[in-house]
Amino acid sequence: MIAHTPKPPYYAVIFTSVRNDLDESDYQAMAARMVELASQQPGFLGVESAREEVGITVSYWESLEAIRQWKAHVEHREAQRLGRERWYATFKTRISRVERDYGI
Amino acid sequence: MIAHTPKPPYYAVIFTSVRNDLDESDYQAMAARMVELASQQPGFLGVESAREEVGITVSYWESLEAIRQWKAHVEHREAQRLGRERWYATFKTRISRVERDYGI
Repeated sequence: MIAHTPKPPYYAVIFTSVRNDLDESDYQAMAARMVELASQQPGFLGVESAREEVGITVSYWESLEAIRQWKAHVEHREAQRLGRERWYATFKTRISRVERDYGI
Repeated sequence: MIAHTPKPPYYAVIFTSVRNDLDESDYQAMAARMVELASQQPGFLGVESAREEVGITVSYWESLEAIRQWKAHVEHREAQRLGRERWYATFKTRISRVERDYGI
């Protein structure tokens, strides 16, 4: 559930969203498919996700190039279009470089 | 619910955790107090949080120095100690620099 990421530096895409109130099962299927598809992409390192009032999905990547390629993936582009038009009342995507990490 | 952060660059602390199964109300009180306290610190820009199996809290900061000061805050240090000893089965903290963002 907590991603097993390598020693920094690496990259994190922080995707925060508030959903529209519709089609729960269609949305879940799309979201699950995107996680499955992302995890098959070159440079993918892991993903963490939770939703209450706000949904937060953080995906981890080896490089900015890997993130660019994932953003341009044809099936992901269609999901992005549906996200803007249908699923999300609002969202924000933040591309960040992980400099340091620690934990237990 | 989605933090209104300024134009990048700024910093994100991605805190991911799995809780132990105890003392829900004590934990909620501590977590709420930490959000309240964080939001009063110099350089704080916003926070987003959700928990399902995994909990994700992302806090946003103007600088690494602001993050260091918040980490060293005496009341926050006590919460960190309780987190390690009591609340969390596992956690990971990642310090990252937000390079770019977009949304609707």
